[in-house]
Amino acid sequence: MTNPVIAEVTRGGIVESRHRGAFAVVDHTGHVVAAEGAIAAAVFPRSAVKAFQCLAMVNSGAADRFGLTPEEIALCCASHNGEPDHVRVARSILKKAGNGEDLYECGAHWPSAEQTRFDLIREGHQYQQVHNNCSGKHAGMLALARQLGVDPHGYSTREHPVQQLIARTMGEICDVGLDAQPWGIDGCSVPTWAMPLKNMALGFACLSDPAFDAGRRIIEAVQAHPFMVAGTNDFDTLLMTEVPRVFVKTGAEGVYCGCIPHARLGIALKIDDGASRASEVAMASVLAGLDVWTEKERETLQRFRHHELTNWRKFEVGEVRGLSL
Amino acid sequence: MTNPVIAEVTRGGIVESRHRGAFAVVDHTGHVVAAEGAIAAAVFPRSAVKAFQCLAMVNSGAADRFGLTPEEIALCCASHNGEPDHVRVARSILKKAGNGEDLYECGAHWPSAEQTRFDLIREGHQYQQVHNNCSGKHAGMLALARQLGVDPHGYSTREHPVQQLIARTMGEICDVGLDAQPWGIDGCSVPTWAMPLKNMALGFACLSDPAFDAGRRIIEAVQAHPFMVAGTNDFDTLLMTEVPRVFVKTGAEGVYCGCIPHARLGIALKIDDGASRASEVAMASVLAGLDVWTEKERETLQRFRHHELTNWRKFEVGEVRGLSL
Repeated sequence: MTNPVIAEVTRGGIVESRHRGAFAVVDHTGHVVAAEGAIAAAVFPRSAVKAFQCLAMVNSGAADRFGLTPEEIALCCASHNGEPDHVRVARSILKKAGNGEDLYECGAHWPSAEQTRFDLIREGHQYQQVHNNCSGKHAGMLALARQLGVDPHGYSTREHPVQQLIARTMGEICDVGLDAQPWGIDGCSVPTWAMPLKNMALGFACLSDPAFDAGRRIIEAVQAHPFMVAGTNDFDTLLMTEVPRVFVKTGAEGVYCGCIPHARLGIALKIDDGASRASEVAMASVLAGLDVWTEKERETLQRFRHHELTNWRKFEVGEVRGLSL
Repeated sequence: MTNPVIAEVTRGGIVESRHRGAFAVVDHTGHVVAAEGAIAAAVFPRSAVKAFQCLAMVNSGAADRFGLTPEEIALCCASHNGEPDHVRVARSILKKAGNGEDLYECGAHWPSAEQTRFDLIREGHQYQQVHNNCSGKHAGMLALARQLGVDPHGYSTREHPVQQLIARTMGEICDVGLDAQPWGIDGCSVPTWAMPLKNMALGFACLSDPAFDAGRRIIEAVQAHPFMVAGTNDFDTLLMTEVPRVFVKTGAEGVYCGCIPHARLGIALKIDDGASRASEVAMASVLAGLDVWTEKERETLQRFRHHELTNWRKFEVGEVRGLSL
């Protein structure tokens, strides 16, 4: 099955590049409300399912025991830009659960926020693991290890009780046995299990069930602190700031998940070629096409469906746009 | 027509992302030696045809009049990393032709070479137009303006005699009337005319005709100075360093062109979605599949067909690979 083109890039009025992909919009019963492409094929969810990894921690009682705030829970779901506020909150989570930065197993990279990166370079500092976009998630995993009373060392490996509990939690909410699924190692060294888009979407529909306290707590934490989940000028942060009733989370290689709690719908999307520029506008297109918004929300979503491409002199040369299917 | 998958990205042993595309290998008579996908569809060649933009300058006599060295001619064909040697050579071209950096119309961006970028940031400098990856090409265009005896201001616009001469030169060698083709504005503000891959490939086959002095001069300049055309750790530079009989040049949005002078073959390739990670390994695959190499060259090309994907802790997590078709 060849997935349809769901986003494209123009230049000089013609289409220069095309992005194929698939998406599923599913309700909490598993009914597929809207879909295109191969939604039963297994794809790696990557960082788009950090909310499920966080769910294992919240369900365990760790968030209550260590008194994690909504801001801190939001950072546990984040692919953040490594800005000072992200680093501050990650350190707070570590401290509350009695963990040190030396326990991190996420690896280190430069903060993606340019200003923060330049400040570090100018001051002669090196990046640290706490700057890793996943440092909040890993702080949550370390808190989970403490709650489980196990040695935190090796918490990132597939065999560790932390990852085993996450796999069970994710498998249950998405209704898929992850033990039998292909798995790989993510950028931050934890396992990522492949599953169909329709199952990811089901998981997000279930997460947003109003009767599910832990799910509501996570979604409301992110919606209250959209800066924490990404950062300055980031698509997730901008979209949730302007459309507060939506929850969205990007993942590497063109994966995008989200939910619409008031409509009890979950969404999962994957761009075949892995491009984030395409997954962002395609997610906005999928959202805009659903009949669950106020007029103002829909107008805002339409705006997120495309953005200008400018060149080095700020000339408008084309656009990136999500397609209506 | 749906182009085939010509490169893919794996994780944990399964394919995570797929890149579709088309390519044409053409001889100097226009005969298609090998091809996949829509090679008659017009695509923007972007920076992959800088050699043709340089050809207009060399043909005009500007290279001789201003005494441009092979190193300088190579930089005119470059998408360089903005490293100190690139900046030095760009300034030399400008100076020889009596032009100043204030005439540049390419726009400015940070050098893509990390070390150079960090040095600028640490020293409190801002990036300049001479750091633009196209600053060599633009220095060549300014030299062409001087040779033509026209006002260099506005040399980047479609109507200027410099761009008009480039369009004629490119149209002739590729056997396509560019006036009737769609055009757009490139990242560095000059026009880019869309044309079929088979015509781009024909152009490169003709450029490498041993009887064509200007073409040979350009190709040999780049082959003698592969660092100039890209830079440290760049695919073009590495490939031409290890396989000196090939000429390759990348372009934005997944375009890749090249030629094999000893076989009089030209090559043009475009990844549908615009990904460079795919165009690189796909180009290596196309080259490796041709029956024109020594055993050692073929082994080297096979090595360039794939590279490991590692995560932040340098774990091998998958690979990017060009496919054999």
